[in-house]
Amino acid sequence: MPFIFSPSPSLLRSLFRLSSVTSTALPRRQQQQFSTSASALAFITFSKTRTSGQYCSPLLKSVTASSTNGNGSGHGLIPPPNKRFKMTSAYSVVQKGSLDAPDYRLYFLDQAGTPISPFHDIPLRVTPDVNVFNMVVEVPRWTNAKMEIATKEPLCPIKQDVKKGALRYVANCFPHHGYIWNYGALPQTWENPSNIDKSTGCKGDNDPIDVCEIGGRIHPRGAVIQVKILGCFALIDEGETDWKLMAIDVTDPMADKLNDVHDIEKLMPGYLRSTVEWFRIYKIPDGKPENQFAFNGEPKNAEFALHCVEETHKFWKDLISKEVPNETELSLTGTSSNVSPTMTTQEAEAIINGNPEPGEPAHVDPFVQKWHWVTVNPSTN
Amino acid sequence: MPFIFSPSPSLLRSLFRLSSVTSTALPRRQQQQFSTSASALAFITFSKTRTSGQYCSPLLKSVTASSTNGNGSGHGLIPPPNKRFKMTSAYSVVQKGSLDAPDYRLYFLDQAGTPISPFHDIPLRVTPDVNVFNMVVEVPRWTNAKMEIATKEPLCPIKQDVKKGALRYVANCFPHHGYIWNYGALPQTWENPSNIDKSTGCKGDNDPIDVCEIGGRIHPRGAVIQVKILGCFALIDEGETDWKLMAIDVTDPMADKLNDVHDIEKLMPGYLRSTVEWFRIYKIPDGKPENQFAFNGEPKNAEFALHCVEETHKFWKDLISKEVPNETELSLTGTSSNVSPTMTTQEAEAIINGNPEPGEPAHVDPFVQKWHWVTVNPSTN
Repeated sequence: MPFIFSPSPSLLRSLFRLSSVTSTALPRRQQQQFSTSASALAFITFSKTRTSGQYCSPLLKSVTASSTNGNGSGHGLIPPPNKRFKMTSAYSVVQKGSLDAPDYRLYFLDQAGTPISPFHDIPLRVTPDVNVFNMVVEVPRWTNAKMEIATKEPLCPIKQDVKKGALRYVANCFPHHGYIWNYGALPQTWENPSNIDKSTGCKGDNDPIDVCEIGGRIHPRGAVIQVKILGCFALIDEGETDWKLMAIDVTDPMADKLNDVHDIEKLMPGYLRSTVEWFRIYKIPDGKPENQFAFNGEPKNAEFALHCVEETHKFWKDLISKEVPNETELSLTGTSSNVSPTMTTQEAEAIINGNPEPGEPAHVDPFVQKWHWVTVNPSTN
Repeated sequence: MPFIFSPSPSLLRSLFRLSSVTSTALPRRQQQQFSTSASALAFITFSKTRTSGQYCSPLLKSVTASSTNGNGSGHGLIPPPNKRFKMTSAYSVVQKGSLDAPDYRLYFLDQAGTPISPFHDIPLRVTPDVNVFNMVVEVPRWTNAKMEIATKEPLCPIKQDVKKGALRYVANCFPHHGYIWNYGALPQTWENPSNIDKSTGCKGDNDPIDVCEIGGRIHPRGAVIQVKILGCFALIDEGETDWKLMAIDVTDPMADKLNDVHDIEKLMPGYLRSTVEWFRIYKIPDGKPENQFAFNGEPKNAEFALHCVEETHKFWKDLISKEVPNETELSLTGTSSNVSPTMTTQEAEAIINGNPEPGEPAHVDPFVQKWHWVTVNPSTN
């Protein structure tokens, strides 16, 4: 039985202060830094206003605007081309290639500007033994581009998924618009494809565990936010277990009131049902069958979900320590002491700089924005 | 009884060719024009690819990006600051002031670059006696800023509505995101506040008639598109009749299949019900009561809706010709022969240039993007 921790508001505030001391100690203007690193990556730092949690840099607007286009990647969510973009006090991202193009990559850097792997080098927990988790945001709410951590590429940047040679945009199934949560993954977790889950009877899907963050803010792609886990669903995707954690940003005004999965239905009525519906139907417009859920589509509670997190974290440790073979050529290198072998900063920067420079977003068919009218059979879940 | 016209696909194509001959006659590269007018308004022209209907200028990306920010005004929908932005072959817009600020204005120009009033100088019909109507897009789908034609300002630019000193953003009522259609108005129409409608028993709301465009594309703010009318709802807003026309862009791939209101339910199941729900509840998060509908919330068909258009067009004619008094100081001037008195181009340009130059978008509270969880009583409509 894992240790279950439901943090109090004051403890969360304390935790948050601990993790953001640099940010809060500086006046706002000093938090904007301009520099050119050895690898010629210009960077812009912006920080959260801790009281409201909003990104406050006056630079944000021009920065985000410069890489936004008409494909639903809007909302000022996309880090700027050719900039290092500070997402929290701890991490930043740098874009290579062009948005809406196959060469688009978003690489992660730590506070010192050292390239890292978001899969391996970001700790699962913000503070050891406390159940506040780092979450890597891959897809901002209400966008369509299916962006994900590229687990088989060195440094595991975020890139857009490609199917049959085409970049993937999830269809808008009425009444939904794009992803209906900030969607991403927990670092240092792995759904082991050689493990058959006792509760679902299905093996893992070979990815970090997925998270649906349900707070009020839209978080930019590449943000590393701190979440608490409220529950989960067990999506069965082509015979594989694909856990979908339900979580909330610990700095969200609603976070104190949400401590288990049933609180979601109480305070956000319909969101859990829509989440199940969304995952069931989202591939239907692409000609795929309806997805299935274990447990009759019912959500599991926070305790169960935390067990899934612990288990997938252990699988990741087994993978990294080579106790489980790496059968699908996942990239296991990083630059921190979490992994072995590590690469040097110079090697990591060379990998990033081996990518094309950022360009203007590519053209996207405006009809990726259309609504699809998928009829759902209410007798199945 | 008005003349009811349901255009065939081939006739629509003919109509459309007529209205876009300049655009289609030029190769794409020649359609981009850079110039500086006498009034020092730089302009950028882009045109639709008529086969796909998409905006195709390579300039679009940088142009739209430069004025996008984090308030849900994204998707490349916002014309660029300090640019004249060609929306179709016939009209363009020029921005003054800053997005998300009280001084934001979007002025309209005709093909010759002459300032016009979108309320008075754009004809209701694309071709006389044919029921294809010009629609002025005020709010692109899935955005929140409540933008509207400022009927009391000279030249009637689009501006953001202000209530109690604050710019208005419509709340996202779950599961909806922003406005769920491209929303706007028909030019040369007016809902006469001294007329009590026979069917609703309520007087008009003193605005041009509203339109919900349900096609697959997101249309930019300020676009003038051609629509056919499929039906309408009678929203009763604080005791006033506020018709909501349901319409579709005649160039939409679905347009041929949609000819009356019942086709919407057949091909887009749930959209009409969501439309009623949306208007009923959208002001509740702002502390307002639920809106009501006449006709038990049932939609009226295309014939009825066209009658509403004719009637509001006649009211507009009465207003413009001073047969009905202008009791609320609506701006009735324009630059075309539609109105009298007219102003000169120089006077109109002076009005535009009297506005602040475009600036960076202002800061917007990120929580304008949050979802509100409004419980709807299914026993009322």
